[in-house]
Amino acid sequence: MEEIKEIINTIDELLETHNYSGIKNLLKDFEPADLSLVLEEFPKKIGTLFRLLPKDLAAECFVEMESDNQERLLSSFTDKELKEVMDEIYIDDTVDIIEEMPANVVKRILNNSDPETRKVINEILKYPDDSAGSLMTTEYVSLDADITVEDALKRIRRTGVDKETIYTCYVTKPDRTLLGYVTAKKLLLSSEDMIIADIMETSVIFVHTHEDKEVVAKEMSKYDLLALPVVDAEERLVGIITVDDAIDVIEEEATEDIEKMAAIIPSDKPYLNTNPFEIWKNRMPWLILLMLSATFTSQIITSFEEKLATCLVLNAFIPMIMGSGGNAGGQTSVTIIRGLALEEITMGDIFKILFKELRVSLLCGITLGAATFVKMMLIDRLLLGNLAVDVKIALVVSFTLLVTIIVAKLVGCMLPVLAKRLGFDPAVMASPFITTIVDVLSLLIYFGISTAFVLNI
Amino acid sequence: MEEIKEIINTIDELLETHNYSGIKNLLKDFEPADLSLVLEEFPKKIGTLFRLLPKDLAAECFVEMESDNQERLLSSFTDKELKEVMDEIYIDDTVDIIEEMPANVVKRILNNSDPETRKVINEILKYPDDSAGSLMTTEYVSLDADITVEDALKRIRRTGVDKETIYTCYVTKPDRTLLGYVTAKKLLLSSEDMIIADIMETSVIFVHTHEDKEVVAKEMSKYDLLALPVVDAEERLVGIITVDDAIDVIEEEATEDIEKMAAIIPSDKPYLNTNPFEIWKNRMPWLILLMLSATFTSQIITSFEEKLATCLVLNAFIPMIMGSGGNAGGQTSVTIIRGLALEEITMGDIFKILFKELRVSLLCGITLGAATFVKMMLIDRLLLGNLAVDVKIALVVSFTLLVTIIVAKLVGCMLPVLAKRLGFDPAVMASPFITTIVDVLSLLIYFGISTAFVLNI
Repeated sequence: MEEIKEIINTIDELLETHNYSGIKNLLKDFEPADLSLVLEEFPKKIGTLFRLLPKDLAAECFVEMESDNQERLLSSFTDKELKEVMDEIYIDDTVDIIEEMPANVVKRILNNSDPETRKVINEILKYPDDSAGSLMTTEYVSLDADITVEDALKRIRRTGVDKETIYTCYVTKPDRTLLGYVTAKKLLLSSEDMIIADIMETSVIFVHTHEDKEVVAKEMSKYDLLALPVVDAEERLVGIITVDDAIDVIEEEATEDIEKMAAIIPSDKPYLNTNPFEIWKNRMPWLILLMLSATFTSQIITSFEEKLATCLVLNAFIPMIMGSGGNAGGQTSVTIIRGLALEEITMGDIFKILFKELRVSLLCGITLGAATFVKMMLIDRLLLGNLAVDVKIALVVSFTLLVTIIVAKLVGCMLPVLAKRLGFDPAVMASPFITTIVDVLSLLIYFGISTAFVLNI
Repeated sequence: MEEIKEIINTIDELLETHNYSGIKNLLKDFEPADLSLVLEEFPKKIGTLFRLLPKDLAAECFVEMESDNQERLLSSFTDKELKEVMDEIYIDDTVDIIEEMPANVVKRILNNSDPETRKVINEILKYPDDSAGSLMTTEYVSLDADITVEDALKRIRRTGVDKETIYTCYVTKPDRTLLGYVTAKKLLLSSEDMIIADIMETSVIFVHTHEDKEVVAKEMSKYDLLALPVVDAEERLVGIITVDDAIDVIEEEATEDIEKMAAIIPSDKPYLNTNPFEIWKNRMPWLILLMLSATFTSQIITSFEEKLATCLVLNAFIPMIMGSGGNAGGQTSVTIIRGLALEEITMGDIFKILFKELRVSLLCGITLGAATFVKMMLIDRLLLGNLAVDVKIALVVSFTLLVTIIVAKLVGCMLPVLAKRLGFDPAVMASPFITTIVDVLSLLIYFGISTAFVLNI
């Protein structure tokens, strides 16, 4: 980061003195990911700087940019420049870019592609946004089963330069049915006269074009794959997904789950590029829903108003009880949600989970109850001099806390599993949702216990 | 999953009829990751089943197992069997296994390794648990700069079988100083008489042994690397980290952040394998801390007790105000925390963030305030017949909500950035922590506004 800031200052100086060859020299050894960050600091000069880059670096850097800068650059390109950049980049990246561009830019890109590429792009564009099909590239190495290792290596040498990976080669029938795969490692370590059919792996892990990209990422992570083949309904190979795209999906999916857990409607746009109105739209629905559901707590408090008035000290501990219940329930629900997402927990584990959480909640409830009792007697009564807090009140609050923690943790582990069973996303069953339910339950517990032990009406 | 259940049933039947060759045939084509799941369903027969596997599959399957099953198997192994398994697996996996085993098992593993391997294992074990050094493998391909492509390919053919990856080869001086790298793709696509020094990439991204593994994963994700070289203090190559390990780190780090955000002390043990006492230890500290901090809310409510008694209806809306404030603040803090973790947001963006959140919170506050006003008049007053809720009370609650949302969102965006600046992990500044602060602030706002407009003392 520090380094990038320095470079930006240097470029600023070089730009002022119109020392373009100096800039050219400075930029040529950069990693594309860093270069895009540098160029994006010069929105007005981005076209000038971009044209100073060697062709292949320019294309790689273009892929790494935010879509608004890509659009800005594309509209400044001549048709020739546009074609040069687009010819350099892999087809899955082209599709990613097209998906973010307005219609007129898309049209220009397609008009400047050769008919074959245009056809492929249009094919990929048809797949739903979250599917394996939309993630794949069609630039893979395919081999016939009956050729030798020597021929296979020759084929790789001839066609490999444009392929996104040559490290996993797919063995197909003439109709593109997938027969197996062979890694470049295997090819290099086998003797040259071996036949591909004899050295290929025939148990291939693959996905269908319509498979969810989250499943794609999970499979690649589980089986440590560098590439995953994608087949159509007739099980013919149509593309591959490479591990770098799977990593992006893993990060996106984690972000999405985190957002859902925080009562936000997920968006795949970076925060700083999202305008306040869009952020508002993603945050408002849950805020309104949770506000409305608090009608229950209001109603409960209102109906206990008269009783509460006779022992107002009880009132002071409502936020603590609700807060602790919400935190305890949130801890459990988030643990279960993440376990389900990583497939460390399955539906069959529900009784194991319940039994475990029962024991954990007993331990937590007893500890927290005891700590609260001590805290109320020492801090609230002795230190802060609130004499309305006596042993009876402290016992009622502590016991309420014990029961609330147990209930909160059981609710916290049941709801995500239940959501999953009903086909909802468990991630929405996180803290905010659990908190709202636990708020209601903890109030009922509190007033129930209070009525039994201290309120006499 | 369904498929695995079927296999388990079949194995059960085959075991009953002692049809071991049937089991052998059934298991031999499995993926190691699936096979480990299958074998772990037979804790008592795991040794028997394991011995039916072909050697290389057995070793790969062993790596995928949970540590308690690995320990069970290791103690059932003869020294010869142990050596056979350990010889098959990569050294970074050996180290991972050793880190989870009790001392006597570690001793047996080391005693059955050849001196060279033992030395390497001991070296790697010295690196801290979260460092690049502990994650790396020493099984990489290194090349001299002055050899030809032909010689390089020969070297790969000769030594490649035991290397974790051959797809990135590292060019080093005789003292192991890193000079550059060359990919297998480049080697295959270059003519055989080229000299490595002329085709290698000299701008290498590398990390030091002590670098945090989170940084390792970020670099690999950012630059789309299949392998990342690790160097010591003298910048000599000591190992490489492969992309499959980086993916594991990315998933672990996301889990860790999610746990921290839910007020849990992170643990890298899967939930189902963690005993209730350990879970209790990870969940208790924050529960106690947050409970204690609720002393502030109790105190505030206590000190307003008399005023509240004159207008008890206000009491009923405290949970809703606190809840909405907590949710609104949590939304913002979680967004910022994730943005910081993915480096989409940096410290320099603080004013941009503040301005954005100010606008978002105004939008959210006005919407939620208006919705609450309507809801109180329609639901609480008209539908539920709570006549104590009048226009004045509804206005006070709605206005409190507006101010609370603004304050909550500003606190929610400031605290994670502040935590980062002070060198703390921003992830702990998530919902539970923010909620506790917002609880206090929202009460002060509520009682302040109430005092000004409806309470007359």
